[in-house]
Amino acid sequence: MSHLINRRDLDFLLHEWLDVATLCERPRFAGHDRETFDAVVEAAHTLAVEQFAAHAAKLDANEPTFDGERVNIIPEVKAALDAYVDGGFMGAAFDEADGGLQLPYTISQSVAALFTAANIGTAGYPFLTGAAANLLRVVGSPEQQTRYMQPMIAGRFFGTMCLSEPQAGSSLGDIRTRAIPNEDGTYRLRGNKMWISGGEHDLSENIVHLVLARIEGAPAGTKGISLFIVPKYRVNDDGSLGERNGVRLAGINHKMGYRGTVNTVLNFGDEDDCFGEIVGEPNTGLAGMFHMMNEARISVGMGASVLGYSGYLHALDYARERPQGRHPGSKPTDTPVPIIEHADVRRMLLAQKAYVEGGLALCLYCATLVDQQETAEDETERNRLGLLLDILTPIAKAWPSEYGLEANKLAIQVLGGYGYTREYPVERLYRDNRLNPIHEGTNGIQALDLLGRKVTMRDGAALSLLLREIGATAEDAAEFDELHEYARSLAEAIDTVADTTQALRQQATDAESYLANANEYLEMLGHVVIAWTWLRQALVAVRAKPAGDADRDFYWGKLQATRYFFRWELPTIDHRAHLLAAVDDTCLGMWPDWF
Amino acid sequence: MSHLINRRDLDFLLHEWLDVATLCERPRFAGHDRETFDAVVEAAHTLAVEQFAAHAAKLDANEPTFDGERVNIIPEVKAALDAYVDGGFMGAAFDEADGGLQLPYTISQSVAALFTAANIGTAGYPFLTGAAANLLRVVGSPEQQTRYMQPMIAGRFFGTMCLSEPQAGSSLGDIRTRAIPNEDGTYRLRGNKMWISGGEHDLSENIVHLVLARIEGAPAGTKGISLFIVPKYRVNDDGSLGERNGVRLAGINHKMGYRGTVNTVLNFGDEDDCFGEIVGEPNTGLAGMFHMMNEARISVGMGASVLGYSGYLHALDYARERPQGRHPGSKPTDTPVPIIEHADVRRMLLAQKAYVEGGLALCLYCATLVDQQETAEDETERNRLGLLLDILTPIAKAWPSEYGLEANKLAIQVLGGYGYTREYPVERLYRDNRLNPIHEGTNGIQALDLLGRKVTMRDGAALSLLLREIGATAEDAAEFDELHEYARSLAEAIDTVADTTQALRQQATDAESYLANANEYLEMLGHVVIAWTWLRQALVAVRAKPAGDADRDFYWGKLQATRYFFRWELPTIDHRAHLLAAVDDTCLGMWPDWF
Repeated sequence: MSHLINRRDLDFLLHEWLDVATLCERPRFAGHDRETFDAVVEAAHTLAVEQFAAHAAKLDANEPTFDGERVNIIPEVKAALDAYVDGGFMGAAFDEADGGLQLPYTISQSVAALFTAANIGTAGYPFLTGAAANLLRVVGSPEQQTRYMQPMIAGRFFGTMCLSEPQAGSSLGDIRTRAIPNEDGTYRLRGNKMWISGGEHDLSENIVHLVLARIEGAPAGTKGISLFIVPKYRVNDDGSLGERNGVRLAGINHKMGYRGTVNTVLNFGDEDDCFGEIVGEPNTGLAGMFHMMNEARISVGMGASVLGYSGYLHALDYARERPQGRHPGSKPTDTPVPIIEHADVRRMLLAQKAYVEGGLALCLYCATLVDQQETAEDETERNRLGLLLDILTPIAKAWPSEYGLEANKLAIQVLGGYGYTREYPVERLYRDNRLNPIHEGTNGIQALDLLGRKVTMRDGAALSLLLREIGATAEDAAEFDELHEYARSLAEAIDTVADTTQALRQQATDAESYLANANEYLEMLGHVVIAWTWLRQALVAVRAKPAGDADRDFYWGKLQATRYFFRWELPTIDHRAHLLAAVDDTCLGMWPDWF
Repeated sequence: MSHLINRRDLDFLLHEWLDVATLCERPRFAGHDRETFDAVVEAAHTLAVEQFAAHAAKLDANEPTFDGERVNIIPEVKAALDAYVDGGFMGAAFDEADGGLQLPYTISQSVAALFTAANIGTAGYPFLTGAAANLLRVVGSPEQQTRYMQPMIAGRFFGTMCLSEPQAGSSLGDIRTRAIPNEDGTYRLRGNKMWISGGEHDLSENIVHLVLARIEGAPAGTKGISLFIVPKYRVNDDGSLGERNGVRLAGINHKMGYRGTVNTVLNFGDEDDCFGEIVGEPNTGLAGMFHMMNEARISVGMGASVLGYSGYLHALDYARERPQGRHPGSKPTDTPVPIIEHADVRRMLLAQKAYVEGGLALCLYCATLVDQQETAEDETERNRLGLLLDILTPIAKAWPSEYGLEANKLAIQVLGGYGYTREYPVERLYRDNRLNPIHEGTNGIQALDLLGRKVTMRDGAALSLLLREIGATAEDAAEFDELHEYARSLAEAIDTVADTTQALRQQATDAESYLANANEYLEMLGHVVIAWTWLRQALVAVRAKPAGDADRDFYWGKLQATRYFFRWELPTIDHRAHLLAAVDDTCLGMWPDWF
């Protein structure tokens, strides 16, 4: 077995639970069937193991360096990415007309999950490229799509997203990079961008930077931001490369993890020589970006889940093979048992399983919502799916990035001293995963988005819809004796969420007190959503007809993880609900001088 | 302000709360007074900042290497340790007759806390030396103390503890290193030791390894283990160094953190040339070791608290200085506010404060119990203090190592992307602190020790005593209006612990089910103990007479952190209590094949 994702579990989620093959009934995916889906996933799995996992530790120990001229990256990265491009993975979700495979987002996310689990450092480059190409797919002009997006899908150009600046990380409204109009409709850009992953390298012929900047005279804040294409090399009309553009590497950030993906500081137009093409209308840059936000955030949650997942599989193998200690009450001359026999090791493994399989399930489910929404013919249905996605997205980003990291922490603990060394991968996965609560909007910002926008929008329609969906699962589950306890708990949890939300809205005196404990709200609703996801898996498991002992064990495992989540995790929402309903002001009331 | 420990807080804990100067009334410490205590702490603080913190990042980035001949360590380490020895810190707690300063353990731990916060990599060497010397102080012969311990106190020799082996980490009963008696009463050792910190270097004239081994024919398990002194260089009767002994470096472990302290694999007697001296009687090696266990474990908790503490102070400074974002409802043209203005940032800072100041307070309190126990004239009192120490030790080790690490995680989050880079120290502190839940007995083993031994021993006498002590604080606090809410909560928590313990003992059918959820017990009792520690600090704060605004702010901060702990943290015990009282078998019942 590889240590990426349990393939049996992935098959269970994609087919037994989400039934992704039904997407092939829709015109967009009519060229596919379950066999092509499985073949793509299998090919990705093989490539991920053979060419990505194989150099993950080496890349972590030998991060990209800047010698003043070039960024140097160990050669295994380019070899792996060439194979990735040759395998067609760069264009997995894009239109066939643009050179893609036109696969559902759910399948392209499954593929991405495998490469992430194998080696996020190397996989970062094509992921950023895919995100940039996807943005151009939605907001670029046909000409921009031909000139920039199609070469990205073909793997000839790589891409970046240039949003943050040294003084503006979370607060994009405060960016200062300027765009000065030229007479020919193009722009000259001037400014500095921070935290730009893949900002400079020789892995591709060209790099397409998508840059947020402020056209001179634009309104303050987020309403004055425009989006620009800034290529490393200008692209001629025939697609050939022209002169070097004025975007230059100013420095490299040295991170705790994610070391293989070079992270840069970029200077634009130091010598007033940086050409940029505007994408869409002036001052609509953030709107375009937000259009992609759901997918970008689901991807972060997916990555966090599977970094945790890989750590879990390593810990599980270790626990099955490592003899140490004995059962309570045994004699010192008895043979030591594998540590999986110890109750506390099982607790740590079961918690990991509940976190990472739960997180993966939620993110795959959200991916199917994206696919269904994009291909729905009925606008009412599209709106319904959009509402669900809107409220689930901050949870799909934040919950796995908290609990996937927690799983990595537990994986180290299972391995003990060995887990703390770089001879085993679990410490690297832990370091890699620590980024996920930070980027694509910190988890604190996800909490504000959830409570401040998603819960209140359209008079609470998204939350009502979500709670109805959860309630339907609870009703289904109540028909099975084995699930009755969980169905009741989930129904109570729905009431807790509804009552807490109402109390908070009634009691909070202003926006500040309403939002002060937003993190607790995200934790509460996140746990309810993951419990729901587990109960849906349990429903599949109780209805399944196992084909043999291994199958039976697999379903028992799903049921026991459901039990773990409902007994050990879900009850923690009550305390958070209490703090929220009371509009507790302990944190808000901590005066800065008192620290 | 330095970023090690808030000196105002350390003074508060040592003097306003624990009143350590009263120890000077005891004969052992009669040569000291508050002024000498403060002078030692101040000197340590200065040295820690100037010579330890200064090279912490460099040492982390340039860990010790083994070139096949020697271990190479950057020269700043030896310079710092020479200054440490010159300052007398190596012998802080040892007898004046042995060359020490004869300070209370509480003061030597405060000093150690400062050096840990500054640079655990460098500080690891003298800490191990102190632990080894302390073991010889208790179980070594007078001749061994002269020959080995006194040169360690003088800083000429360094020491190690050689317990673990590749196949025996947590399970010391399974060690295989053999000791073969020579005719002159010495032994020849053969075997391999794993995870030996400070196992080889040129920082000192000699290295004194304290080695657990099994004399041929000894009983199986922990009752057949003996303790040996194995010097790197044999020591002549006149104290001069003799020939090289047969202990050799087999390799270096490369860790996630704690990188400055070289961690080694050692081979003993590959060529049957390893001389060892037995310490104490044959087969009593673990008893001697356990004698030191309380102090060693309190030291781990102390270290974990202050690694978290240093991260907290860095995060606090950053949050006060970094402008980003605005209050809810403000305009985009308003000036961005320092991020400490955001409620969620305050939550993360307040949680850190509650964890690290709470952990430090508990460990310092335990240190005073050690001092009182060692100097008590009355055997009843000595027993009482010993009981308290016995039950508090696993908590003092495990709780700060969980929550100090959590504090480090939050510190990174406060710094956002910057916190994830190696340009700021918070990621290093997080990596360093990840060791603490693992070494000196994993936290899982602490939980078994607590529930399996300490709670049951002498018919529950230790737990009863602890709960009475906590109850006395609740009664004191009930007299103050400001503390009434907390006093009631703490009294209820005592009942919860007592009821849960009784239910668990009655319901559990065997040792395995009794111990299966030991981790939850440790978490539950740990939170009650830390809440107690906070309420004791709050009592000091409400009784204090502030000397000015800064003083007043400091006490308000203590009260608000108390409120945080009681409202946000303590209520989480109810869920754990429920699982324990129900003897929930979810984890124990997870069959290995189901994973």
